[in-house]
Amino acid sequence: MTTQPRLVEVRKNVLKQNDVTARALRERFREAGVLAVSLVSSPGSGKTAFLEKTLTLLHSRYRVAALVGDLATENDAARLARSQAPVKQILTGTVCHLEAAMVQNALEGWDLTQFDFLFIENVGNLVCPSSYDLGEDLRFVLLSVTEGEDKPLKYPTIFNSADVAVITKSDLAAAVEFDETAALRNIQAVRPGMEVFKTSAKTGEGMAEYLGYLEHRRARSRAAAAVSL
Amino acid sequence: MTTQPRLVEVRKNVLKQNDVTARALRERFREAGVLAVSLVSSPGSGKTAFLEKTLTLLHSRYRVAALVGDLATENDAARLARSQAPVKQILTGTVCHLEAAMVQNALEGWDLTQFDFLFIENVGNLVCPSSYDLGEDLRFVLLSVTEGEDKPLKYPTIFNSADVAVITKSDLAAAVEFDETAALRNIQAVRPGMEVFKTSAKTGEGMAEYLGYLEHRRARSRAAAAVSL
Repeated sequence: MTTQPRLVEVRKNVLKQNDVTARALRERFREAGVLAVSLVSSPGSGKTAFLEKTLTLLHSRYRVAALVGDLATENDAARLARSQAPVKQILTGTVCHLEAAMVQNALEGWDLTQFDFLFIENVGNLVCPSSYDLGEDLRFVLLSVTEGEDKPLKYPTIFNSADVAVITKSDLAAAVEFDETAALRNIQAVRPGMEVFKTSAKTGEGMAEYLGYLEHRRARSRAAAAVSL
Repeated sequence: MTTQPRLVEVRKNVLKQNDVTARALRERFREAGVLAVSLVSSPGSGKTAFLEKTLTLLHSRYRVAALVGDLATENDAARLARSQAPVKQILTGTVCHLEAAMVQNALEGWDLTQFDFLFIENVGNLVCPSSYDLGEDLRFVLLSVTEGEDKPLKYPTIFNSADVAVITKSDLAAAVEFDETAALRNIQAVRPGMEVFKTSAKTGEGMAEYLGYLEHRRARSRAAAAVSL
């Protein structure tokens, strides 16, 4: 097909433009002293439940905010708003991932220095979000126990683009005969040394450990920013 | 961004080429008297378990074959081969959907007149496969009870591109407090009149009804083909 090289070339331009915008966002986050964390996973892995629990637990001690991407509906923003944190929905239409420019537009009207943590929930997809840097400090990939232990092997690129893996819905592990050893082995095969948290937004299992990690990362990133000023 | 119009134009060409190939495939399926059924869903909805059960149950009475798409690994083909049906894996690399040309290539060496049913398991994704016709007679969209009842509202395009919805993992419905009424309402909101089957590949619930539907559709399609000859 003669169109293939053109498609590749155009796609490169889109990605290059995205990288420029993402770099600018990362710089803004650093200057504002906010730790930006994005979440990726397949649809139905429990991203929104996990994020709602995160916002609720952090809310008393930190200033938190969230952006949430979906093709259609503002359901997730409505759910997350129950945590009392400021939340904005990004509707992507038919686009299967967030782009840095969408994040930039959604942030308009927010003073980032008023936040300690900014969470960005990507569209539910294990493929499209891989190539798009959103300027986040950390990218978490979520994997629910109901999805099957081989997802890291099947979607290596998204696991490679992420910094941390979170196993969700651990309360269902027994019911679905989740093989944790196999899941951990598959994660390490694709991304050796990757940090993994096992959590349940329902029972709260593993949430304290994961929140401790977030706090530690925020402190580290602020210390690094102070040194570079 | 100046690249946007070019990207749209190139994408249109790709889709147009795909439609031409899909039309040729559909004609081949009709002439060979094989009913082609594709499965789409998010990763981890249980497509492969559902398909393995389907192949195993149909195998004694019909000649069945399957193509299965994934970004990486041949795990699914290996799993499906346990059913004794001929199976081929299509590896898409970083592409988040199957295309008609990939199906066409994968079919090389197979005599389609030797099959009654051909199943095509798409890459796990609720967005990308929407726009790509594979020449199939029927497209099934799967939704597991663990994913949340609002998926049809969040991914309306894929539900619109499908003919039938299958609720999977019904054995876990109680454990995850699945709200069946809400799920059915959301499916009907997006695609009024859509046929829905509720199944469990584990317990076998709903499989007989779904297989009856497949047999009925195959008989109908053969009758129509006979008339048009």
